[in-house]
Amino acid sequence: MKLTAARIWSFIEDIRKTAPVVHNITNYVAMNNSANALLAIGASPVMAHAEDEVEDMVDIAGALVINIGTLSDPWIRAMFRAAHRAKDRKVPVILDPVGAGATAFRTRTARELLREGPPAIIRGNASEIMALLDENAKTKGVDSTAASHDAVDVARQLSNINGCVVCVSGETDYIVRGDDVTRIMNGHAMMTRVTGMGCIASALCGAFAAVNGDYAEAAAQAMAVMGIAGEIAAQDVPGPGSLQVRFLDALYGLSERDIEHRLRTEG
Amino acid sequence: MKLTAARIWSFIEDIRKTAPVVHNITNYVAMNNSANALLAIGASPVMAHAEDEVEDMVDIAGALVINIGTLSDPWIRAMFRAAHRAKDRKVPVILDPVGAGATAFRTRTARELLREGPPAIIRGNASEIMALLDENAKTKGVDSTAASHDAVDVARQLSNINGCVVCVSGETDYIVRGDDVTRIMNGHAMMTRVTGMGCIASALCGAFAAVNGDYAEAAAQAMAVMGIAGEIAAQDVPGPGSLQVRFLDALYGLSERDIEHRLRTEG
Amino acid sequence: MKLTAARIWSFIEDIRKTAPVVHNITNYVAMNNSANALLAIGASPVMAHAEDEVEDMVDIAGALVINIGTLSDPWIRAMFRAAHRAKDRKVPVILDPVGAGATAFRTRTARELLREGPPAIIRGNASEIMALLDENAKTKGVDSTAASHDAVDVARQLSNINGCVVCVSGETDYIVRGDDVTRIMNGHAMMTRVTGMGCIASALCGAFAAVNGDYAEAAAQAMAVMGIAGEIAAQDVPGPGSLQVRFLDALYGLSERDIEHRLRTEG
Repeated sequence: MKLTAARIWSFIEDIRKTAPVVHNITNYVAMNNSANALLAIGASPVMAHAEDEVEDMVDIAGALVINIGTLSDPWIRAMFRAAHRAKDRKVPVILDPVGAGATAFRTRTARELLREGPPAIIRGNASEIMALLDENAKTKGVDSTAASHDAVDVARQLSNINGCVVCVSGETDYIVRGDDVTRIMNGHAMMTRVTGMGCIASALCGAFAAVNGDYAEAAAQAMAVMGIAGEIAAQDVPGPGSLQVRFLDALYGLSERDIEHRLRTEG
Repeated sequence: MKLTAARIWSFIEDIRKTAPVVHNITNYVAMNNSANALLAIGASPVMAHAEDEVEDMVDIAGALVINIGTLSDPWIRAMFRAAHRAKDRKVPVILDPVGAGATAFRTRTARELLREGPPAIIRGNASEIMALLDENAKTKGVDSTAASHDAVDVARQLSNINGCVVCVSGETDYIVRGDDVTRIMNGHAMMTRVTGMGCIASALCGAFAAVNGDYAEAAAQAMAVMGIAGEIAAQDVPGPGSLQVRFLDALYGLSERDIEHRLRTEG
Repeated sequence: MKLTAARIWSFIEDIRKTAPVVHNITNYVAMNNSANALLAIGASPVMAHAEDEVEDMVDIAGALVINIGTLSDPWIRAMFRAAHRAKDRKVPVILDPVGAGATAFRTRTARELLREGPPAIIRGNASEIMALLDENAKTKGVDSTAASHDAVDVARQLSNINGCVVCVSGETDYIVRGDDVTRIMNGHAMMTRVTGMGCIASALCGAFAAVNGDYAEAAAQAMAVMGIAGEIAAQDVPGPGSLQVRFLDALYGLSERDIEHRLRTEG
């Protein structure tokens, strides 16, 4: 894939112009941050999880983000109902398998959602992505115990089996579609000290997928924007409290020049 | 209505002195921000949604804020139970019909809550207010697709039918009681890029209604404080992340002079 | 107890080195902040409340934090199931009885959780701690209506009955184990204007209890770190919005020298 600053910028402009509704069924921890990140980039976030309304929300949405970070049975039912409607209406689904591998309940739910789909994009850390395929993959809570490159082979298999894009995030982000692998080397280590940054990445994948039908490119654009905004936010930052605030400022204030200047990608 | 800086200030002092309990049954996205805004202005926020305890909470509350931003059935049952108790105990209810018009489920729930009440104050954006009366009103997610003045006629009808105050927020805020319409022209455009700002406005209506039995004035005071704190926060602000933080600082540090200096109202 | 800066620092280093999983079943308002505070100090937070997975999460956790701030029946069932598993696996439990005394539902739930335990540490404000023992204790919402020293006798009784550590937080924090009472005089008044600060204190008790088997010392260390980070954050702070952000920065950047310099304790 050819990931360029000019095309990233053009899709940011599309998001700002059209303000696509991004419907999130996501976890309690990251809801506020995800909504704020979507507003900062120019999208129109909606959070809705009632079985009685998720289908109506999908109908007005440009993308559906399903994040299993704080699951319970009624939410799972709503996720399936929304995913099913999204398939019917060809609304792209982003699946974030938070904590897959940490408990059997999460691993099973993530895999079932995958089968229901398939999603346009799966985005997770290395441990989560590996847990989607490997029975024996274990992880420690919701933080990855593996480096992102360890999961590239699994990502390729997942992509081939499900015909979807798989994004493994970490120090380097890998966006995988079949044998095509794009690497993004943006971002900053302190971002791992702010909760919900992965969830925000998935939400931004939703914003880009709503305006860009090439989902591999959409995922790569989202991850690049994520990393670049994180780098800008991390300049002389005293700690993760400020990083979180400045990250939203950076998303909002992002310019084409910032992207040109900072984008580091291969693939 | 005569909205003055001196009276706004005097009710802020009342809130700070008496720290009224404001009971919120609100959405997951805006809970933290609403609690922080209520603490910053001097009130004592409580978030509680279990059917088993909402009545007890209403009993110690100075106001009840019902916000339908992230609905589900058990929450709806708790909302009705709390609203019913508030009516019995003459505790003022603020209804925030978040996303009414976006799904049938929300529109129906908002209208049923309205019938149960009536609330002291309904606060929403133009799309939401219109959806409460007009079968054909549609909206795109939770952001308004209409300007606030478009909803003034509907607000007047809603006010007359329900005998309550209707507040339509937007670039200009309209506080409507029957034929009395007060306009407030405070605020800043970047506030729309921070999630939950409308929810905070409703929470602040609760704080003012807890100390001011003239609910139209209470709503107008809350909206003025909201807009003025937003303007102060927006001065030289780099983006919406910082705006959110500074908004709480501004609410906390608000002085009578700030209000005198900045209040822009007609009506 | 001898609370020293050197030992506080050594356990912070342990947290940073081992990144213990702290499993939180906590309220919606404080989830994000609690996760961020745990990340800032170096722990690995997990939020999970589904009955189907809490036992698996406890199995990988170094501590379990149960916080009743926004209760409902399914959550209560999950709390009991997790507490039961923690007892079997000797995972220390921190119980935060948010709002005990405000409604019969909360008081009853907190007391039942206490019986299921007993927890390693109970942490609450004076009103909440008193409500755990005294049938007639009443409180106004979730803010304390008593000073922390008023609850020391009750804390001593609770500690003796349950064989656990009781931490009463307030302007002075009291860490009580039987007749041993440690006082900590750190902190800043503006911290009471930020929602969820008590919940964060309980979460930090979890992080320290995960690496320090002396739970009274762990609780005291957590409260000292809490207060010291709050003081650093409060220097020249314009208001509670900024305080919250700087508090996370301060937790992250805390040095042994800060602690030596600022620790004020007796006992």
